[in-house]
Amino acid sequence: MDAEFMQIAIALSIENVRSGRGGPFGAVIAKGREIIATGANQVTSANDPTAHAEIVAIRAACQKLQDFQLSGCDLYTSCEPCPMCLGAIYWARPDQVYYASSREDAASAGFDDEFIYSQITLPVDRRKIPMRQALQQEAEAAFRAWEEMLHKIRY
Amino acid sequence: MDAEFMQIAIALSIENVRSGRGGPFGAVIAKGREIIATGANQVTSANDPTAHAEIVAIRAACQKLQDFQLSGCDLYTSCEPCPMCLGAIYWARPDQVYYASSREDAASAGFDDEFIYSQITLPVDRRKIPMRQALQQEAEAAFRAWEEMLHKIRY
Repeated sequence: MDAEFMQIAIALSIENVRSGRGGPFGAVIAKGREIIATGANQVTSANDPTAHAEIVAIRAACQKLQDFQLSGCDLYTSCEPCPMCLGAIYWARPDQVYYASSREDAASAGFDDEFIYSQITLPVDRRKIPMRQALQQEAEAAFRAWEEMLHKIRY
Repeated sequence: MDAEFMQIAIALSIENVRSGRGGPFGAVIAKGREIIATGANQVTSANDPTAHAEIVAIRAACQKLQDFQLSGCDLYTSCEPCPMCLGAIYWARPDQVYYASSREDAASAGFDDEFIYSQITLPVDRRKIPMRQALQQEAEAAFRAWEEMLHKIRY
């Protein structure tokens, strides 16, 4: 753990509030001693509900490395990732994640993380945003096309 | 449920494999009878691990509507959302989600959704990607700055 990288993530989270760009969240992605990318929450200023600090940083780091994986990288985030960002972390696969505030701290400050964590474990038909399955058989053709595809890039 | 919108999402998922742009996933966001945006998986072609069909469509719809919320919209996706996309859905808050393939179908085709669902419910210290807390107290300043901010835009 490099305390300096976490201090930068926290500084970004505070600066982000003061600048009015978005919520109090910042992130740093480092590879060894080098910072590859940083991010701060831009949900309201960019009209992008997915623009959480971690996702902004992951996207920027992948652009810089021209890779869709962050093997060998560490993610420092000012707050425990929400389920969306945790999912993004599992797809990007950094080596290690460090976080400062907890999801409970985020919930106390009015951010929905804890609610979303509780929704994810519910059966589909008991979630607050209604979800319904339709045309499952028609969609099988997509996975068949994928299986038959030669030279595909797995991720 | 508008079967036509789901058929378009499925067609996008198949076309996406054939074009080599990414995984077999497509999505449509509609408001009433109008399609606001579509998306297909671009993880490998855009070097963006967050570029799942749903997230591509959510970001595009929000740009079109110039809003960070999708109230009044429905999301049609060719496959049950992974945890990252489910989180994004909860942040974007569409009225309704329809999906065709299940997460088990995705897992059978080699996509990690089911694994990530199982990781999210584990305590932080038992997850496969190591996560550790650090500098929690230093990060409190960000939430304090947020609480003190007047005229902030909540999301």
